[in-house]
Amino acid sequence: MRVEIWSDIACPWCYIGKARFEKGLAAFAHRDEVEVVHRSFELDPGRAKGDVGLVVDMLAEKFGRSREEALAMEEHVASNARSEGLGYRTEGRDHGSTFDIHRVLHLAKAHGGQDALLDFAYRANFAEERSVYDQETLVGLAVEAGLVEAEVRRVLADPDAYADDVRADQREAAELGANGVPFFVLDRRYGVSGGQPAELFTQALEQAWQGRVITPVAAPDAAVCDTDGSCEIPGAGAQSSQAGAHS
Amino acid sequence: MRVEIWSDIACPWCYIGKARFEKGLAAFAHRDEVEVVHRSFELDPGRAKGDVGLVVDMLAEKFGRSREEALAMEEHVASNARSEGLGYRTEGRDHGSTFDIHRVLHLAKAHGGQDALLDFAYRANFAEERSVYDQETLVGLAVEAGLVEAEVRRVLADPDAYADDVRADQREAAELGANGVPFFVLDRRYGVSGGQPAELFTQALEQAWQGRVITPVAAPDAAVCDTDGSCEIPGAGAQSSQAGAHS
Repeated sequence: MRVEIWSDIACPWCYIGKARFEKGLAAFAHRDEVEVVHRSFELDPGRAKGDVGLVVDMLAEKFGRSREEALAMEEHVASNARSEGLGYRTEGRDHGSTFDIHRVLHLAKAHGGQDALLDFAYRANFAEERSVYDQETLVGLAVEAGLVEAEVRRVLADPDAYADDVRADQREAAELGANGVPFFVLDRRYGVSGGQPAELFTQALEQAWQGRVITPVAAPDAAVCDTDGSCEIPGAGAQSSQAGAHS
Repeated sequence: MRVEIWSDIACPWCYIGKARFEKGLAAFAHRDEVEVVHRSFELDPGRAKGDVGLVVDMLAEKFGRSREEALAMEEHVASNARSEGLGYRTEGRDHGSTFDIHRVLHLAKAHGGQDALLDFAYRANFAEERSVYDQETLVGLAVEAGLVEAEVRRVLADPDAYADDVRADQREAAELGANGVPFFVLDRRYGVSGGQPAELFTQALEQAWQGRVITPVAAPDAAVCDTDGSCEIPGAGAQSSQAGAHS
């Protein structure tokens, strides 16, 4: 079974949701048969590279609140994070374009280490107040996740590298009806929106596992090879008896 | 959209079916949004490594036919292959355990080049009478597909390398109800069995594209971040107005 998770490094519920999903997955009997893939979703796709500011200032400006109210919004999310054992600092965090981070996450996907890089980037962004919008910080996290430094720098220096992969993920999210993140898709069949409780993820995994039914596309004359060694040959004169029994 | 193809290098309908699928995919409007993954399926899982013989002898013995009848069976498959522009030699081809080939295909999957290696292995096995059961031939094909020779040799020398991946693919095929190959699964939703005509693959891709509906798992209090910048905070006092509208 495959679980695709659309998320953004700037999204606190993605950070919390990833931890809750992993708890839910750990309680799922068939966890060893689950493949997890992370997909890109920019929460602020219009933001220019280099346009970086404090999260609380962005929140206050965007929603017309005072700095104290913005901090209270952050504090509520932080309490949810802490109840999952996750660090969360409400001040000093940056907000900016996550496009480059998503490009490097795609590099990590191609070479292994995507999940680790996402964990490290979340930790830096939410728990450590290290700015993931700073290129050197991002390079350091990627190397920590096992990527080759020169490769990471090559990707960051070439704005086209993995850019189409990021956009393809985002287009696909829209096609699948996702308006926000985190968005979890199980075997392209069931969707879970939001950083739900771990138990709900376990239930969803069980539901998707039970629902693994493949609808056969109507097709004549199946030309297949079976484990009995026969290759059914539609219309052949020299069919094996096994093959004949299927025709 | 993702298409998974279970196949075995020893399966002539997989060889033909791959070519037909690719023609069908080329005629599909959203072909650029289709990811293809190859999965392992051993047609003869009980065969010992090193137990290699001629295909026609295996066929004749297995189905109690004369060598001439076995050749006629092969010739019928060959005519199907040739009508797709694929080379196919009916004599001199070997039959043996494909487990090591599947292990190297998993190495190729992890490093890129899986599709190319499968093409090269099919070509060697069916069109060129080069024995893919010979280790040096297999190493040469893998290097041709872009793999690092030392990595390939390391995997071949370690019987556990990627062995679990091969077995997991085979277990999954059984769970999905596949008794033979090729078996095509579109977005874990629709299945196509056999080396069908290209047009059928195009139709199946169109059907799966239309059927890309994600069923939401019932869940309370979606804790998501939207592209409008708001992170819905269930039960929070300091919700943004946007977030409040969703609650």
